[in-house]
Amino acid sequence: MTRRTPPSPEALAAGDRAALARAITLVESRHPDDRAAARVLLDGAMSRTGGAVRVGITGVPGVGKSTLIDALGAHLIGRGHRVAVLAVDPSSSRTGGAILGDKTRMARLAVADEAFVRPSPSSGTLGGVAARTREAMLLCEAAGFDVVLVETVGVGQSETAVADLTDTFLVLALPGAGDELQGIKKGVIELADIIAVNKADGPSGERAAMAAADYRTALQILVPPGASWTPPVLLVSGLAETGLGELWAGVERHRARMEETGEFTARRRRQDLGWMWALVDERLRSRLRSEPRLRERLPQIEAAVAASRLSPTAGADEIAALLGM
Amino acid sequence: MTRRTPPSPEALAAGDRAALARAITLVESRHPDDRAAARVLLDGAMSRTGGAVRVGITGVPGVGKSTLIDALGAHLIGRGHRVAVLAVDPSSSRTGGAILGDKTRMARLAVADEAFVRPSPSSGTLGGVAARTREAMLLCEAAGFDVVLVETVGVGQSETAVADLTDTFLVLALPGAGDELQGIKKGVIELADIIAVNKADGPSGERAAMAAADYRTALQILVPPGASWTPPVLLVSGLAETGLGELWAGVERHRARMEETGEFTARRRRQDLGWMWALVDERLRSRLRSEPRLRERLPQIEAAVAASRLSPTAGADEIAALLGM
Repeated sequence: MTRRTPPSPEALAAGDRAALARAITLVESRHPDDRAAARVLLDGAMSRTGGAVRVGITGVPGVGKSTLIDALGAHLIGRGHRVAVLAVDPSSSRTGGAILGDKTRMARLAVADEAFVRPSPSSGTLGGVAARTREAMLLCEAAGFDVVLVETVGVGQSETAVADLTDTFLVLALPGAGDELQGIKKGVIELADIIAVNKADGPSGERAAMAAADYRTALQILVPPGASWTPPVLLVSGLAETGLGELWAGVERHRARMEETGEFTARRRRQDLGWMWALVDERLRSRLRSEPRLRERLPQIEAAVAASRLSPTAGADEIAALLGM
Repeated sequence: MTRRTPPSPEALAAGDRAALARAITLVESRHPDDRAAARVLLDGAMSRTGGAVRVGITGVPGVGKSTLIDALGAHLIGRGHRVAVLAVDPSSSRTGGAILGDKTRMARLAVADEAFVRPSPSSGTLGGVAARTREAMLLCEAAGFDVVLVETVGVGQSETAVADLTDTFLVLALPGAGDELQGIKKGVIELADIIAVNKADGPSGERAAMAAADYRTALQILVPPGASWTPPVLLVSGLAETGLGELWAGVERHRARMEETGEFTARRRRQDLGWMWALVDERLRSRLRSEPRLRERLPQIEAAVAASRLSPTAGADEIAALLGM
């Protein structure tokens, strides 16, 4: 753990991408001094955050996320937006960055002045990765990026984490019907604000339309009556760059609807408070890991509970006692 | 808060229902001395727990949960089982017990020696209610009940809480198609191990079959390929007492399949460890509520974060500091 040099708040506010990169590196650092500096930087930036359209994007490997994000980002830049692309990949600490590790996967955004592409932090736990990504998102907003796209490859509960970070959650689906649809993980369709079937061009165009029809059937059954929003099912192609305007119109329509119903503000408040408590719990966990006495005892407690030798209640009591609570 | 007299472990082990009722009242008490006595009782009972088939049951109001549970329970008693019925209703602290408050809703189980029916604890938070219900479930198992049915009316996240308590999660659905299906809350179908369309008798029989067909379509799309279990969609009638044998066969088939794949043991371990950590967090929260200095400051912190005047990170830092972490 080495200390980082904090960027100047002015450079960050001016949208200097090098300063933004340094700021994100700072919030990703676990060095106590860096954490303190990161806090100062974040608190100073808070007043300039919250202005971006925050979109979460997921889809199974092979669905063409990077190509779609590159095309969508370029489309938005063409319309005058500044686009930041972040990622939540809890596996990256093991694999060394499964997604966005290779910026060339987003050829245009990697070189555009109006874009900022950042790989997933690799800080281990999903909670940690999500917390760092959330801080990175705020820094991007403070640096004047008005669109933040948060990609996830969908390891573990990462879709839920990204849905909790963003205003609109986009699920990318593959063309095809029946079995081919089912690669999507349990619960993910429930999170979707928009479903876009990618590769809806050329030979697979027809199968994309079939897939869309199947998703519409599923949504008919899954969306409660009187719901303020029914996820549209769109056809897009990142490769052929079709449907991008309609896709973004869907994002803007969702946001407008959420603002009408007050759900937009409510969702962001919920996210902020939930995030605060997640950080408190994260702090609790890290303290458990860091105190030698606890770190030594914890595996024994967990093993005893897992083997039903100890009741979870008794285990919780012992942990609380070790924490001096 | 008055102190309770703990039942004798022997009476509990012997399956004495009065002793079981007293034991559950003890674990539901918030009196510190009672909590301590409850812990002793639970730890003593642990070795006799885990043997029951644990089934969670949900469905929208009007689906006929009580009638179905009464009929299913009587059916199982007829087959030599001892059946405990518990409930998770986070609203009961406000309404004074929305479900199972009135035992006459389960006329036969209320009077059967082989049955034990207990209303939802009304301890406020969902986490608290779920924790008490889990302890009650263990006590029922220690008292020799080999089937535990946990009912929820589906307030807030209570279905998820009940799914986390049980081995098999049963969703009761109403006859009818289209709109009528959609009363089921977002995400609940995702939790289902078995879907049973109730009232599949008499005039609504045909509409029940239509509903079942719609659920099968939804499951085709929602269940990942190569999943070890695809939820069966069954037709039952609590009133006419039809389909009860098939329903229980489905529960046993699900359990057998989970045991084959090892998911059964994995799920119970996950539940126990998850429960332990939930209790640690609950302890943290209750300490926050109980310490005057914190109780006074917390609303201000939450308001500042909700209004984006304070970053969640800074809020978490202050809470951690107040907790001396």
